[in-house]
Amino acid sequence: MHYDVAVLGATGMVGQKFIQLLEGHPWFKVKSLAASERRVGKKYGEEVIWLVSEEVPKYVRDIEMVQLNPKYVDADIVFSALPSNIAREVEPKFASEGFVVASNASAFRMEKDVPLVIPEVNSDHLGLISIQKKNRGWEGYIITNPNCTTIILTLSLKPLMEFGINSVKVATMQAISGAGFLGVPSFAIEDNVIPFIKGEEEKVESETLKILGKLKNGEISYANISISASCHRVPVTDGHLESVWVEFTRKVDVEEIKSSFEKLASIKNLPTSPDKVIIVRSEFDRPQPRLDRNSGNGMSIVVGRIRKDAENSVKYVVLGHNTVRGAAGASILNAELLVAKKYV
Amino acid sequence: MHYDVAVLGATGMVGQKFIQLLEGHPWFKVKSLAASERRVGKKYGEEVIWLVSEEVPKYVRDIEMVQLNPKYVDADIVFSALPSNIAREVEPKFASEGFVVASNASAFRMEKDVPLVIPEVNSDHLGLISIQKKNRGWEGYIITNPNCTTIILTLSLKPLMEFGINSVKVATMQAISGAGFLGVPSFAIEDNVIPFIKGEEEKVESETLKILGKLKNGEISYANISISASCHRVPVTDGHLESVWVEFTRKVDVEEIKSSFEKLASIKNLPTSPDKVIIVRSEFDRPQPRLDRNSGNGMSIVVGRIRKDAENSVKYVVLGHNTVRGAAGASILNAELLVAKKYV
Amino acid sequence: MHYDVAVLGATGMVGQKFIQLLEGHPWFKVKSLAASERRVGKKYGEEVIWLVSEEVPKYVRDIEMVQLNPKYVDADIVFSALPSNIAREVEPKFASEGFVVASNASAFRMEKDVPLVIPEVNSDHLGLISIQKKNRGWEGYIITNPNCTTIILTLSLKPLMEFGINSVKVATMQAISGAGFLGVPSFAIEDNVIPFIKGEEEKVESETLKILGKLKNGEISYANISISASCHRVPVTDGHLESVWVEFTRKVDVEEIKSSFEKLASIKNLPTSPDKVIIVRSEFDRPQPRLDRNSGNGMSIVVGRIRKDAENSVKYVVLGHNTVRGAAGASILNAELLVAKKYV
Amino acid sequence: MHYDVAVLGATGMVGQKFIQLLEGHPWFKVKSLAASERRVGKKYGEEVIWLVSEEVPKYVRDIEMVQLNPKYVDADIVFSALPSNIAREVEPKFASEGFVVASNASAFRMEKDVPLVIPEVNSDHLGLISIQKKNRGWEGYIITNPNCTTIILTLSLKPLMEFGINSVKVATMQAISGAGFLGVPSFAIEDNVIPFIKGEEEKVESETLKILGKLKNGEISYANISISASCHRVPVTDGHLESVWVEFTRKVDVEEIKSSFEKLASIKNLPTSPDKVIIVRSEFDRPQPRLDRNSGNGMSIVVGRIRKDAENSVKYVVLGHNTVRGAAGASILNAELLVAKKYV
Repeated sequence: MHYDVAVLGATGMVGQKFIQLLEGHPWFKVKSLAASERRVGKKYGEEVIWLVSEEVPKYVRDIEMVQLNPKYVDADIVFSALPSNIAREVEPKFASEGFVVASNASAFRMEKDVPLVIPEVNSDHLGLISIQKKNRGWEGYIITNPNCTTIILTLSLKPLMEFGINSVKVATMQAISGAGFLGVPSFAIEDNVIPFIKGEEEKVESETLKILGKLKNGEISYANISISASCHRVPVTDGHLESVWVEFTRKVDVEEIKSSFEKLASIKNLPTSPDKVIIVRSEFDRPQPRLDRNSGNGMSIVVGRIRKDAENSVKYVVLGHNTVRGAAGASILNAELLVAKKYV
Repeated sequence: MHYDVAVLGATGMVGQKFIQLLEGHPWFKVKSLAASERRVGKKYGEEVIWLVSEEVPKYVRDIEMVQLNPKYVDADIVFSALPSNIAREVEPKFASEGFVVASNASAFRMEKDVPLVIPEVNSDHLGLISIQKKNRGWEGYIITNPNCTTIILTLSLKPLMEFGINSVKVATMQAISGAGFLGVPSFAIEDNVIPFIKGEEEKVESETLKILGKLKNGEISYANISISASCHRVPVTDGHLESVWVEFTRKVDVEEIKSSFEKLASIKNLPTSPDKVIIVRSEFDRPQPRLDRNSGNGMSIVVGRIRKDAENSVKYVVLGHNTVRGAAGASILNAELLVAKKYV
Repeated sequence: MHYDVAVLGATGMVGQKFIQLLEGHPWFKVKSLAASERRVGKKYGEEVIWLVSEEVPKYVRDIEMVQLNPKYVDADIVFSALPSNIAREVEPKFASEGFVVASNASAFRMEKDVPLVIPEVNSDHLGLISIQKKNRGWEGYIITNPNCTTIILTLSLKPLMEFGINSVKVATMQAISGAGFLGVPSFAIEDNVIPFIKGEEEKVESETLKILGKLKNGEISYANISISASCHRVPVTDGHLESVWVEFTRKVDVEEIKSSFEKLASIKNLPTSPDKVIIVRSEFDRPQPRLDRNSGNGMSIVVGRIRKDAENSVKYVVLGHNTVRGAAGASILNAELLVAKKYV
Repeated sequence: MHYDVAVLGATGMVGQKFIQLLEGHPWFKVKSLAASERRVGKKYGEEVIWLVSEEVPKYVRDIEMVQLNPKYVDADIVFSALPSNIAREVEPKFASEGFVVASNASAFRMEKDVPLVIPEVNSDHLGLISIQKKNRGWEGYIITNPNCTTIILTLSLKPLMEFGINSVKVATMQAISGAGFLGVPSFAIEDNVIPFIKGEEEKVESETLKILGKLKNGEISYANISISASCHRVPVTDGHLESVWVEFTRKVDVEEIKSSFEKLASIKNLPTSPDKVIIVRSEFDRPQPRLDRNSGNGMSIVVGRIRKDAENSVKYVVLGHNTVRGAAGASILNAELLVAKKYV
């Protein structure tokens, strides 16, 4: 089993993470890197400002970057790390030309016929693919993964659905890498917290409901949960921490919540799938971004401090690696799922 | 009008802040500094590891520190910056000997006959003083101010009481100075968030209800509000940021909430009282600790991002300087109130 | 005595610092704020992303910004906080139209007929002004202050000149504010040090020699000192720390070095002049950026850890506030000197 | 080939790093963990405050800690991560009982008959072992590795010895992990630099000369180099950066310096030995702690910014991982060398 893949938007923070995670991937081989006009024709290794580890992986150094255009891209699957406004233009071109587009961009996430998927949560939403292709007359299709904050939150909510979730409140403490390399000036965040991230609260509040919704008769009916998010940027490099309150329709106790978290099954036989989807830590002061963000190679989320709040509510803290499980790793896992389910 | 004052626990983080804020105070003159046994007899300026600004104020440099014992302390009012376990032993000795003890320690905050006061919120609770003196047979008395996180939260809740508060959820992002100088090792917090502060959530959840409670027939009946706190330490030097959800018993709108915040009156003619108790900022990304913590010389709290949540609920962000309004400044303001109300 | 002044490049990091320092200035009154084309006509308070303190000073909020053009600027003195490439074009236009240009830009610092001045070091270099006006046929003139790192270093070297300086090595640890608001992405500097600042080492190595040089027969002969700088960016908001080795042509001892530092005289009767130009601290671990950068309202430099190295050399640490003494405050002090010496 | 090893001082920052690096080691198997009295009898996994990665390695979790006493320790080699004052007492007891003590402590580094070794620099100093055993009548012996800052500096100086080093100046920017877990309070270092590290400059200035010295007739004659260090703590978790000036007895050029760095040979066939001892980076802004500290699994040092200074001098920047190459990894590499050279 072998597929050629491309990365669109290869030089940005998420693009770099794609390249790092795809190094030595057993199924996917990077054949094309596409970037903005001014980089076309330049070698990746000479052009990128590489910041995710000490060195640009050898395998991509000499790849000459091409245009964001299906004509120049040689791949079965394209991973999109494009900014939303560019994704909106570019991704449909690829999908219509027959490419499978696994996108991390927000552009199409909320479209009715576009699956917004976390494999362990709603792989059945892949059922939208055939509808999308038919609707749009495309030979390929677009599949999206949620916003980083949403993925981490929703992975933790999924196992709690069995208790009947009524409402969710979440206060996030998000890493600077989530804003891209130039997103947060150091003078803005050093010795500081910024209690605002553009569009973030809206994404969390809407995407979660779609993901936890049910696909029936070709349409997703959104989950009937009240969600409220408050998002904050903190001076941390990687790893989003989220402080969550969940109110249920019935009484719950901490032990059943904990064991429910631990039972969320990982998808077997996908190379990027972690052994444990949710790691529950029992220390009084975990999870912490610097210590826990690389759990399961960055693909596990870590839950801790599960506390009873009222009769029918709990609070807990959840952490995930925002550019791995929350971005590049999410798209790659989606693509692996598509392969395993024969959608490619 | 002139009163001699002393600081108990003068060398710690909060003790230093007392000394800084009392420099040039128009009513209070520092006469004694009391500290732990091993510092007794040493000059303050030679012994303290001074960290709150460039230099130890000249006026205290040559004061020789004395024991935590009423015999050696020359003062009308003593400010206590003691750790709780030591405060529990030491403060009653001072109160029984006729001193007015304005304490920042948590030891006696929740005792039935001890006022837990924020001047702009519940100055009527001073009515407990005569009861305390009688109960305990003391010539002096203890008055306490709340925990730093509680003060900031409660100042913001007070004006909202008119709308009928049903429940409050608060996620805090707290500065390292709140833990004292040795409280948070740098290797623990650099590039990190710690989602736990010992005893903090319990203090916020209990103290707030006492402060917002009503004094009637010599007893405080606690406010009937459901409060849930999740506390986090972030890599910020000073300034606690709190993300708050408030649910009311009736419909509210953002404008009435905002104007209610702005109407909270400051206590006139107290030297440490800020012009505005609550500053409401309208920028999309404020308040921020580094930019806003010194508002009103650290005695104002700053509210921003007031948003409608549901019909009968809002969310907002509130910030205050944890060692000024949240600690030393709080005790000093309490002492000023006592003077103005003739309790000294 | 009263002069109208303008700030060119008013919205950037240094421009903001000019506006903050000029609030309530006894001699200078801000009449015009000039900025890039897209800001012209907009009110300063509505346009600036204000980051140096909690609020935009009231006195400038409603000033409508004008073009970088002498025609639209109403002032006796213009302070330039422009980027070097723009300063190169714009500053001569102002000087030729009769304005006194006190510039923080690097564009003209090394020109033969342009004074590069630190008042306490080389006020005699003002003698270049008449030559400049004659050379260029300008009615006004340009006076410059050095790069931030250079100012701090050179202030510490000046008093040591009496011992005969042979060579200087300096390793700098520079604050992020030195790069302007967007200069250092947080993901680049968090948990990191960047051992490179563009053009900085060259500036320190050349500017210092001009400042310490002698004006004779209308020309500056550069100081004959060997200087080598290594510049590093560290995660600190404000305050450049410099670790210095100085080798002399004769034996020295620490006490004479120390007393020499303390004797550097401040210029009397200039409003921005600090009481002490150099503060020598004797603690084993000072100066430190967070504790010492505001010494003398940011206009003093702080020296510490003076140690004998070899017979004829010492090492020490020096710190200064990079955007006050190292930028806006430096230009303002220069302008005050010009007024006091009747050059305006 | 298999040796049982023990770690003395197993719960501290360096002790934890030993345990992390020894996990799965092909030659060494951890059999005993020794710690201070109050931890004796407790399981390592339950007692340690683990901070170097997400989890305590499984292999040590259930080991019950024993006293710092040869009687209770089961090992061929003991690694010492003890504080110096305790090492001074404890290490001789182990050496006299026949243990090989590979120590990271400073206690015995400068003793005449104790080898202070960096394998790639002065493995011939192992010749002191037989002298030490004879002198002291011990069945075992102590071998030490230098201070973290010294190791990184000296590895970079070794290849330059061929050009005749006259003098060295080094300004360090050191990570907080170098001070141990409780060494640097966050309030001291956040938004700050501390220009002092106790004893550090003295260690660098003396240890380097011993290591670069020659063993002849059973004695080390120190290298005849003038070294001057200025040490600074910066807010970085791991990785010491050092800015170095080297003056030679002859002319040098950058290319020969660079190629000399790259030629420093690694010791073949030691499990912890990196492929490249010195990695020379050619980017204008490297090495950087966060990006480069893990080069060669933390066992390579990274050099960059090699610049000509004067005719016969250069400056450069060097970085190494202070708790790997600079501490635990250094001791382990020493022990591997002992095994390879049949000293165990």
